[in-house]
Amino acid sequence: MSGLACFKNCGSVMVTGANRGLGLQLVESLVTGGFSPGKIIATARDPGSALKLNELAKNHPQVHIITLDVQSQEGIQKCAEEVHQLVQEEGLNCLINNAGVNVVANLQTVTAEKMIENFHTNAVAPLMITKAFLPLLKQAASRAPRGAVSMSIQRAAVVNMSSLLGSIELVSAEQMNNFNWYPYRTSKSALNMVSRCLAVDLEPDGILCVAVHPGWVRTDMGGSQAPLSPEESVSSLLSVLGGLSEKHHGSFVNYTGEPLPW
Amino acid sequence: MSGLACFKNCGSVMVTGANRGLGLQLVESLVTGGFSPGKIIATARDPGSALKLNELAKNHPQVHIITLDVQSQEGIQKCAEEVHQLVQEEGLNCLINNAGVNVVANLQTVTAEKMIENFHTNAVAPLMITKAFLPLLKQAASRAPRGAVSMSIQRAAVVNMSSLLGSIELVSAEQMNNFNWYPYRTSKSALNMVSRCLAVDLEPDGILCVAVHPGWVRTDMGGSQAPLSPEESVSSLLSVLGGLSEKHHGSFVNYTGEPLPW
Repeated sequence: MSGLACFKNCGSVMVTGANRGLGLQLVESLVTGGFSPGKIIATARDPGSALKLNELAKNHPQVHIITLDVQSQEGIQKCAEEVHQLVQEEGLNCLINNAGVNVVANLQTVTAEKMIENFHTNAVAPLMITKAFLPLLKQAASRAPRGAVSMSIQRAAVVNMSSLLGSIELVSAEQMNNFNWYPYRTSKSALNMVSRCLAVDLEPDGILCVAVHPGWVRTDMGGSQAPLSPEESVSSLLSVLGGLSEKHHGSFVNYTGEPLPW
Repeated sequence: MSGLACFKNCGSVMVTGANRGLGLQLVESLVTGGFSPGKIIATARDPGSALKLNELAKNHPQVHIITLDVQSQEGIQKCAEEVHQLVQEEGLNCLINNAGVNVVANLQTVTAEKMIENFHTNAVAPLMITKAFLPLLKQAASRAPRGAVSMSIQRAAVVNMSSLLGSIELVSAEQMNNFNWYPYRTSKSALNMVSRCLAVDLEPDGILCVAVHPGWVRTDMGGSQAPLSPEESVSSLLSVLGGLSEKHHGSFVNYTGEPLPW
């Protein structure tokens, strides 16, 4: 069974930041892949302006669009309540914390405000969203049949969209030459720490937690010189996600499936 | 020559958060060590209430106390100007970004505000302070004699006081059981990323940059059950700092001198 096929038995997947880029591609690939999850919850700060996402939802009734500004605690709570109404006692199987920004700044242009803005969206929001959705994830995890694989996205999982640029070990002069981004890099290394702490805290409930690098992708964020199309990245990523098990729990995984250093 | 002896040839050292704990001990050990730097600049948010620090400065004229609230950009700029007046054309040899807080919160109690507060003081402030003091560090680095060691605290260095709890790799259930601190851990892993990016950006100017773990120390932050006294931690740490060279540049070093994983 291929990775993507595994989503067939995944009751529900939620993708934040689904209005464009990788988030939109995740929703599109999931819904058109032939092995769709039962429910795909796509969130966006301003769904009204997400034309392609609305088109997808119109043609595929399993796609549910919900408004979510990831920096708003009130918004997160409201979203969790709406998702609860949608998934009921089945809970939420897979939360993909995809929403993220790149507040571009090098040493010369960086400010405290830019650092905090990027940290809030990329590291704090995934933590606060996971916390708010924990009852729904626990509910899904608790419904796993006896003898099932102990951890998987079919059961319950939190997937944090990190970046190779968040790897502290891989920082190099050559890499910094092209990506001298203090706010983005610190926010992603902080997200990796959040992932790893969540992995410890969610393990007793059987909820898988991983940080993933989607590759360098031709999105608004990645730019036109990136080597991967959104389709290529997401196709590989979904295959990897579909095959995740307890051995990946608490790790940092490339879109090709290989482990990455912190 | 022992590590501490190396501070003899270090013209100036600045220690932030010197009102208590490790910062105060750093100033005390440096000034009473027999091999003192020429000038020790000790900063505190509210120097008036730092009784022991004031006592030290009264008895040791090489200790200069300057007010610095590390969250205030205006305050950072003002402090840099005052230090410039003090060190003049000799520049600043060693900046120890020691000021830090622990906004204690686990998954149940964490909020976005707590995450951001800890991140600001522990990761953003060291970056903004280093940026503001860069002209003084460059000035010191440029005065190194021909043929001198390429990088050292005698020449110019930024030392970021990190923590083992900021190591993403070392997160474990056992460690989280005692230190389930989301804001602190994320702030320190973010600081490690800041250190590593700074190491790349400061290298062309010959400025050393490291992140250090001071050990678990019996301070107000470390608590009474910690195994190390402030004297033990700082004695070992200063010895390590005194012996830093280009091989440590961009690394994460324990107070015993061993490398730590990110």
